[in-house]
Amino acid sequence: MNAEILSVGTELLLGRTVNTDAAEVAQALADIGVNVLYQSTVGDNPGRLEEAVRQALSRSGLLVTTGGLGPTGDDLTKETIARAAGATLALDEGSLRRIEEYFAGRPWGESQKKQAMLPEGCTVLPNDIGTAPGCLFETAGGRLVAMLPGPPSELRPMLRRYLIPALARRGQAAIVSREIHVFGLGEGAAAERIADLTEGANPTAATYAKENEMFVRVTARAATEDEARALCAPLVEEICRRFGDVVYSVDVDGLEQVVVQALRERGLTLATAESCTGGLLAKRITDVPGASEVFETGLVTYANAAKTRLLGVPEELLCSCGAVSEPVARAMAEGVRARSGSALGVGVTGIAGPGGGTPEKPVGLVYLALSDGERTWVRCMPGGPRSRGRGSVRNAAASTALDMVRRYLAGLPPTPGGQPRP
Amino acid sequence: MNAEILSVGTELLLGRTVNTDAAEVAQALADIGVNVLYQSTVGDNPGRLEEAVRQALSRSGLLVTTGGLGPTGDDLTKETIARAAGATLALDEGSLRRIEEYFAGRPWGESQKKQAMLPEGCTVLPNDIGTAPGCLFETAGGRLVAMLPGPPSELRPMLRRYLIPALARRGQAAIVSREIHVFGLGEGAAAERIADLTEGANPTAATYAKENEMFVRVTARAATEDEARALCAPLVEEICRRFGDVVYSVDVDGLEQVVVQALRERGLTLATAESCTGGLLAKRITDVPGASEVFETGLVTYANAAKTRLLGVPEELLCSCGAVSEPVARAMAEGVRARSGSALGVGVTGIAGPGGGTPEKPVGLVYLALSDGERTWVRCMPGGPRSRGRGSVRNAAASTALDMVRRYLAGLPPTPGGQPRP
Repeated sequence: MNAEILSVGTELLLGRTVNTDAAEVAQALADIGVNVLYQSTVGDNPGRLEEAVRQALSRSGLLVTTGGLGPTGDDLTKETIARAAGATLALDEGSLRRIEEYFAGRPWGESQKKQAMLPEGCTVLPNDIGTAPGCLFETAGGRLVAMLPGPPSELRPMLRRYLIPALARRGQAAIVSREIHVFGLGEGAAAERIADLTEGANPTAATYAKENEMFVRVTARAATEDEARALCAPLVEEICRRFGDVVYSVDVDGLEQVVVQALRERGLTLATAESCTGGLLAKRITDVPGASEVFETGLVTYANAAKTRLLGVPEELLCSCGAVSEPVARAMAEGVRARSGSALGVGVTGIAGPGGGTPEKPVGLVYLALSDGERTWVRCMPGGPRSRGRGSVRNAAASTALDMVRRYLAGLPPTPGGQPRP
Repeated sequence: MNAEILSVGTELLLGRTVNTDAAEVAQALADIGVNVLYQSTVGDNPGRLEEAVRQALSRSGLLVTTGGLGPTGDDLTKETIARAAGATLALDEGSLRRIEEYFAGRPWGESQKKQAMLPEGCTVLPNDIGTAPGCLFETAGGRLVAMLPGPPSELRPMLRRYLIPALARRGQAAIVSREIHVFGLGEGAAAERIADLTEGANPTAATYAKENEMFVRVTARAATEDEARALCAPLVEEICRRFGDVVYSVDVDGLEQVVVQALRERGLTLATAESCTGGLLAKRITDVPGASEVFETGLVTYANAAKTRLLGVPEELLCSCGAVSEPVARAMAEGVRARSGSALGVGVTGIAGPGGGTPEKPVGLVYLALSDGERTWVRCMPGGPRSRGRGSVRNAAASTALDMVRRYLAGLPPTPGGQPRP
C-alpha cells in the first residue's frame, strides 16, 4: 500500500515548529512495509486543506493527517478533512467519557466536547496523554484515512500503540518491533554487514543512524503478537551474532540506561572525573531516573590545579606528560575511585576544540580510563582532521566512557580487541 | 509574495531524517515577509518530483527546493527540477573553481564536476561548507526557483548569507535581523507584552519559543544594510525596554555564552556544586569554547556523603533540613566557592523526579544558591503538579543557575525582584 502524510498547522509553515511528526509516522509506516510517497504541510486554511486531502485521496491508499484535533479554533481542521473524505462526524460516547474522566471534576467546555466528534463508523484511536482522540476510517472510495493529533507527546503513543496495530488488524495481523542498539560500529559498516538481512518483507529490518550510535529495527507481522515475536527472534539473534559485542542492548535505548541498570543489578557504584567532557558524562548518567543509587560523585576538573587537589594527580605528571595523556587519564580514574570510595572510577581528558590542538595532540584526541581498584584500562580516541567539532567530540567521548563501563560489567575487555578481564 | 518549499529525499519519506530544512527555510522567509503556503516532500523519483515542481510553479511565486544537489546518483534531482522549471543547465566556471579549491590537489571526479552545472543565467549561491553550490533563477513564467542543498550545515549558511540577501536584492533591499534573547518570561506573556509591535511589515518582529527561553527576531529591509540596521534599532530598543532585565542578550544565543563572556571580561572564575542537575550545569558552561579560562571546578555531589566530604556541608544540616533545602543549597555554593578558590560559587539541589517527591517537597522543587564570598543569594523553583518531567526540571534549573550568575555580573539582583546588590 502507498501512503502519504499531510501535516496541518500554520506554526509549521512559519517554521516555528520542526515537523518531527511526519518522520515519526513515516518510520512507523516503513516498519510495517507501507511506502510513503508524499509528505505535505498546509496551514489552517480550509480551502487549501480540502484541496490537499482530495489530491492525497486521488493518489494514495492511506492518508495520515497530523495536527488540528485540539480544542481551539482550528478544530475546523477535523471537519474539513472529514468533509473532503466524504465522512460525517458524530458524537462518540466512549471518547466523551474519556474526556470527562480526564477532567475529573475540573471545569471543561463545549470546545472540549467537540473533540469527541468523530467520523461515523471509524476506529477510535485513544489519546493516552491528552484529550483529543484520533481515528481511522475508510472512505466510500476504499481509501483509508487516519487522523492523529499534532503534539508529538500525544502523537507518538497513539501512533505506535493504536494506529499501527489497527492497520495491522485490518490485514488480520499483529505487529512487533525490536530494536538492536549498537555502539562502536558505524551505520554504513553495520548496514553492509547485514545487507542480505534487510531485504525481507516480513520481518523487515532497517538501519538507523543516531549520534555516535546506530540501531536496527526489526518488525514482524503475524496473526498474533506471539507469532510476530517468534518471527522476529531468529533475525534479531542473527543480527546480534553478526555485530558481536558492539551490541549494547536489545530494546533498551541509550548506553547510560544500560550502564545504570547493570550497576544496579551488580550492586556497584561509579564515580567520574571529567576534563574535556566537562560534566556531560555525569549529566548523561544522571539523566537516568534512580541513578543516585549507583552514582555518588562526579568531578569536573577542568583546571590542572583541580586535578591535583581533588583527584591527587601528581603535578609532575601533569608537567611531564601534559593534562591530555594516558598517565593523567589513568591517575584521574584511579584518584576519583579511591577518594569517592566507589567500586569503579572513570577518567576522561582530551582536547574538545576548537582551540588547543597541536600537531602532536590534535583536536579530538581523548584519553579515557576505567579503574576497578585492581586494574586500570585506558582507551584513546585519536582525533585529528576528521574530528567533527566540539559538541561531537564531547559526545563521542562520553559514549566511549559509558561503553567501557558497559563492557566491563558484561565481562568483556573494556577496550574492544583488548585482553579479556581476568 | 507566496512561496512553497519542496524537499527531496527518500530518507525523509522513510522517516530516517527529520526535515529541519523546511523549518529553517520557512523561518527565514517569514522574517522577510514571504508567506509559505505549502511544504511538501517527495523522494528521489523523477516523475513525482517533476509533477511536484510543476504543481508548485502553478500556484506559488517562489519555490525553494532542498536536497538533491550532492555528487551521488541523485543529482538527477537538479536536472529534473531544472527541466520542470524550463531551465537549461550549463557549466558555471566560478563554481568549478571553488570545487577545485575545495579539493586542493586531492583527487576528485566527474560526479563532483557535475555540481558546477547550474541553470543558465542564475544567481549562484555559494556553499561555504561543502562543494555543491545552490542557485536562484527566474522561470519564463516569471516564477522564482531557489535550490538549496540538503545537509543542514550547508543549507543554513547558504540560506541566511546568500539566498535571503539575493531575494532582498531583487526587491532592491538589504536585510538585517536581530535577536532579543529572554529568560524568565514565557513566550505567551512575552508575545502579549509586545503584541502591538509584531504587526508591522518592516521591520517585522516575531516571537519564538525555545526550551525554557524565548526570543524575538526583528528583521528589517532597506536599500542598504546600514539603513536596515537603523530601522531595527528603535524596535529592538523598545522591545528590550518592555521586557526589562529578563533580556539576557541581543544577538548572543545561550545563557552560557553570555555568562562565560561576562566572567572573562571581568576576570572572574566560577565553580559549581550540583545535585539534581547532575553535571548539566557544568556541561553547559563547558559547551562554550574557552570556558576553561573561567571555570576550573565542577562537583556533582549526588550523595549526601559527597556533599559533606567535598563541599563541607554539615551532616547535621543534611539531617535536619534535608538535602533539598535552602540552607543546603547555600552551604553547597559557599563550600564549592571557598574550596575551589573561585570568585563565585553556585549550588543546585532539588528533586528532578520522576520519583522522590513528597507533598512537602514535590518533584520539580529546586533550590539554587550563588555566593560571592561576601553574600549568598538563594532562589527557589517551587515544582509541583505542573512540573514537566525530569529533563525539563533539570534544564530549567541549570538555566536558572546561569541566569543568577548573569544577573550578578550585570549588577542586577541575582533573584528577580530581589534587593539590588550592595
